[in-house]
Amino acid sequence: MNILFIMYDQLRFDYLGCAGHPHLHTPNFDRIAALAVRFTNAYVQSPICGGSRMCFYTGRYASSHGAHWNGFPLRVGEQTLGDHLRKIGMSCHLIGKTHMTVDGEGMERLGLDAGSLIGVRTSECGFDPWVRDDGLWAEGPDGFYDERRSPYNEYLKSQGYDGTNPWADYANAGVRGGRIASGWFFDNTDLPANIREKDSETPWLTSEAIRFIDQAQGPWCAHLSYIKPHWPYIVPAPYHAMYGPEHVPPATRADAEREQAHPVYDAFMNGPVGRAFQDEQVRAKVIPAYMGLIKQCDDQLGRLLDHLEGTGRMQDTMIVLTSDHGDYLGDHWLGEKNLFHDPSVKVPLIIYDPRNAANSTRGTTCDALVESIDLAATFIEAAGGTVPDHIIEGRSLQPWLHGQTPLWRDYAISEYDFSATPVAVKLELEPRDCRLFMVFDGRYKLMHCAAPTLRNMLFDLATDPEELRDLAKTEAHRDIEAKLLAHLRDWGLRMSQRTTRSEDQIKAMRGASTAKGVLIHLKDGSEVDEKLTEKYRGFARQNHLTD
Amino acid sequence: MNILFIMYDQLRFDYLGCAGHPHLHTPNFDRIAALAVRFTNAYVQSPICGGSRMCFYTGRYASSHGAHWNGFPLRVGEQTLGDHLRKIGMSCHLIGKTHMTVDGEGMERLGLDAGSLIGVRTSECGFDPWVRDDGLWAEGPDGFYDERRSPYNEYLKSQGYDGTNPWADYANAGVRGGRIASGWFFDNTDLPANIREKDSETPWLTSEAIRFIDQAQGPWCAHLSYIKPHWPYIVPAPYHAMYGPEHVPPATRADAEREQAHPVYDAFMNGPVGRAFQDEQVRAKVIPAYMGLIKQCDDQLGRLLDHLEGTGRMQDTMIVLTSDHGDYLGDHWLGEKNLFHDPSVKVPLIIYDPRNAANSTRGTTCDALVESIDLAATFIEAAGGTVPDHIIEGRSLQPWLHGQTPLWRDYAISEYDFSATPVAVKLELEPRDCRLFMVFDGRYKLMHCAAPTLRNMLFDLATDPEELRDLAKTEAHRDIEAKLLAHLRDWGLRMSQRTTRSEDQIKAMRGASTAKGVLIHLKDGSEVDEKLTEKYRGFARQNHLTD
Repeated sequence: MNILFIMYDQLRFDYLGCAGHPHLHTPNFDRIAALAVRFTNAYVQSPICGGSRMCFYTGRYASSHGAHWNGFPLRVGEQTLGDHLRKIGMSCHLIGKTHMTVDGEGMERLGLDAGSLIGVRTSECGFDPWVRDDGLWAEGPDGFYDERRSPYNEYLKSQGYDGTNPWADYANAGVRGGRIASGWFFDNTDLPANIREKDSETPWLTSEAIRFIDQAQGPWCAHLSYIKPHWPYIVPAPYHAMYGPEHVPPATRADAEREQAHPVYDAFMNGPVGRAFQDEQVRAKVIPAYMGLIKQCDDQLGRLLDHLEGTGRMQDTMIVLTSDHGDYLGDHWLGEKNLFHDPSVKVPLIIYDPRNAANSTRGTTCDALVESIDLAATFIEAAGGTVPDHIIEGRSLQPWLHGQTPLWRDYAISEYDFSATPVAVKLELEPRDCRLFMVFDGRYKLMHCAAPTLRNMLFDLATDPEELRDLAKTEAHRDIEAKLLAHLRDWGLRMSQRTTRSEDQIKAMRGASTAKGVLIHLKDGSEVDEKLTEKYRGFARQNHLTD
Repeated sequence: MNILFIMYDQLRFDYLGCAGHPHLHTPNFDRIAALAVRFTNAYVQSPICGGSRMCFYTGRYASSHGAHWNGFPLRVGEQTLGDHLRKIGMSCHLIGKTHMTVDGEGMERLGLDAGSLIGVRTSECGFDPWVRDDGLWAEGPDGFYDERRSPYNEYLKSQGYDGTNPWADYANAGVRGGRIASGWFFDNTDLPANIREKDSETPWLTSEAIRFIDQAQGPWCAHLSYIKPHWPYIVPAPYHAMYGPEHVPPATRADAEREQAHPVYDAFMNGPVGRAFQDEQVRAKVIPAYMGLIKQCDDQLGRLLDHLEGTGRMQDTMIVLTSDHGDYLGDHWLGEKNLFHDPSVKVPLIIYDPRNAANSTRGTTCDALVESIDLAATFIEAAGGTVPDHIIEGRSLQPWLHGQTPLWRDYAISEYDFSATPVAVKLELEPRDCRLFMVFDGRYKLMHCAAPTLRNMLFDLATDPEELRDLAKTEAHRDIEAKLLAHLRDWGLRMSQRTTRSEDQIKAMRGASTAKGVLIHLKDGSEVDEKLTEKYRGFARQNHLTD
């Protein structure tokens, strides 16, 4: 079996037809969902691109691998999906984005050559890169956001798009009055991107995926990782015109949220992104573009599924669709992601398992509390391996796919490190205090901050599914806070770093030192089997060297 | 300045003259203490050789580096004292024992050649090995405890000692009736070891240290790491005859300890080592040998200090004396180490700083709550570096050495993983549940077990300095338990793995993405300085490629 692990970027859990969106129809997501299990309570371990992805790719919590945020390098030695899958005979490839930053200092310390196969894999988050393009080729006075060069830009240049950064000038810009109208500016997001639709990023990467699949020798795992519908919010025709302000749901927000708001939440609400998305004009332009980007993703998914069907790959390929986090889109007075309301931290997750064992669950949904780190475990099991649970912290979802009801976790954890953001500056916090933790037990959701001066946030999703009433503003629910905090603190003491010895290896060690002659309880040796002491008794000494 | 970092193995904190031992006079430990600060509350982070040393050498807690126990490999990539010191221009050498197990699988995964300089350092816990000898050349039916070959054994062979393992047959055995009388058997520990005193391990390693120092180009850090007074408890003449049963202090123990004992403590008490040390005949033979071994260490320390004085090295060398853990020696009905009573987890720590800034503290003691991980930080600061506090979890002791009174920690943590021991088998526990934690706040000491079925242990050292009354047997001190448990749980949520980005690097990141063109809040760009958006505005388009 192969694994096609498709990730979209910043795709909200509820912006799919099968998830109930009132205006956005996604027949191809729905088509795979009809063959698959759709998980309705899937949470990422960090609602930010880089941090979330390092959790997906290592199967470990952000606090376990340490790459909490965009640009924090994943340390050399941290094992990834690729390491685990190759060990059991499955190759592992990258087509698109990882947002992984290489630990260059660590590679230098260990003398790893970036050009060697091991060096490339270490630099590419354990994948063999078919094509790596993180999709964010922003430029400012201090240079490029991403210091690499973009294969997608090279493609555009080969197709006749001019300039040094056609990603910015064509793929992510419209034209107004004969001039570039950048997709960075929300005023321009209703324009069509100034690019042939077939040359835009989502079709380009889909073509790369098809090209990969057509030549691949299985069993393989391919991580097809799209940048879209992530900003810049601009999409080529005809997608730019498919949705309008009439398709934009009202923002989920309440005035009460702004009263006595938690300081971190307050700072995000009052930051420039939050303020922008509080503007209905912004939402009315941005959200139709966002929907158009998703619609384009859906069409390209259809193209890919058709190809898989046509080549027989549907029979031997597990297909997984998910996202690294959501997008507030103005809900809760916020834009972007970062915090732990469902629009940010909950993601779509659809898993199609071609095996007969999954027949009974096709087209169903599963409400189990899923963490994104579960995918690494699921893939290892699907590839025929045993999950190394002293390294991988997620749990295989295979039982759910196969109609079983395993004993499951009581709570999901997510983390967000805002230490590098302006919110940290505003609140005058040291980096190590800027760590937020979410604990969600399926009903109550707690946000806790490492800064000892900051209170918690608490929502009861049973009575307040839209998460508009922060119950931690009063004393009334301190018992619930304490209960969730106890979960968090149990989790804090989990064993996460003993990655060089498995549970089974340790069991095999028990008592082994005795059989290797470490005998630290014997008066004369008669206490144990003679065999254990034969090296230390019974034979005559020839030399007596004490002088 | 150089650093001579001397470690003894299994040396109890109270078996030194300067620490008040009634019968054991250690004029050379006392001589350096008179020039130094002696820390009276120094705790190791794990009372077991391998786990403790990995904490000393990484400056990190056992749960942070993951090598909790003997034989658990230190993962490739985990940074050590050597990595930190070399970066700031100080070489770092090993003379003796580390008890480090190499992460061979990790080295293979990263393609590290064990014979290269980087490979050797990775295999040797970050040190450049002058000589590595872990000092435990036990043999049983399953082979050697340590699969390496012993440089000390090679030395013995070169001096005419015969057989394949003169470590066992001469250095750690006496002679009785013309036959080998192994030092493994307590009945033989009153015999003199069948070896010329100058050829025994402590003088041999001291000679290696002198040989190293005489050729070393500074600044250097040398870890002189003796196996003694660790078992086998047997010492050559004249040390074997210096102490007798009359010098053995009564065991610190009470019948009450055996009543309603904590299951883990109970299992250790009733294990073979505990039972052996409950026998007064064993104590009467073993402890005099243990004292003789320490006395020999003291004499060899004198030899070393004389050499340093004679060569001018006392003026430019920081000298540190400590141990990796203690030895119960029958106290609390136990032998060996493992648990968290002071005889096991508290260690001697003497730091001589040759600089004038330390003149005011010479010959003093310091009661601050010190952790063994503080040494790595101390050494980095002594070498002129800045402690990378996103990696190193200990704190520099330099302020104490220089007469300052820094803000200090509220509690010390230690951990012990008994997952590979017979106690785990007896209690039928899975490896991950076999983790014990100590929290000591200077007065109360809590032992907590990861196994949810097991209660805590609690001692009040203010009213019960000998730790004979486990207060957690009753409900009376649940508030104190809760307070210490809260410390432990705070500690559990510490940031320990974000080792690729420092606090300062993160502060420098704040807002940097904006200057690199990530502009996710702009309606038309007028909101920000024009410079930030110049890449996205104001120039005409030649081609309009939308088809």
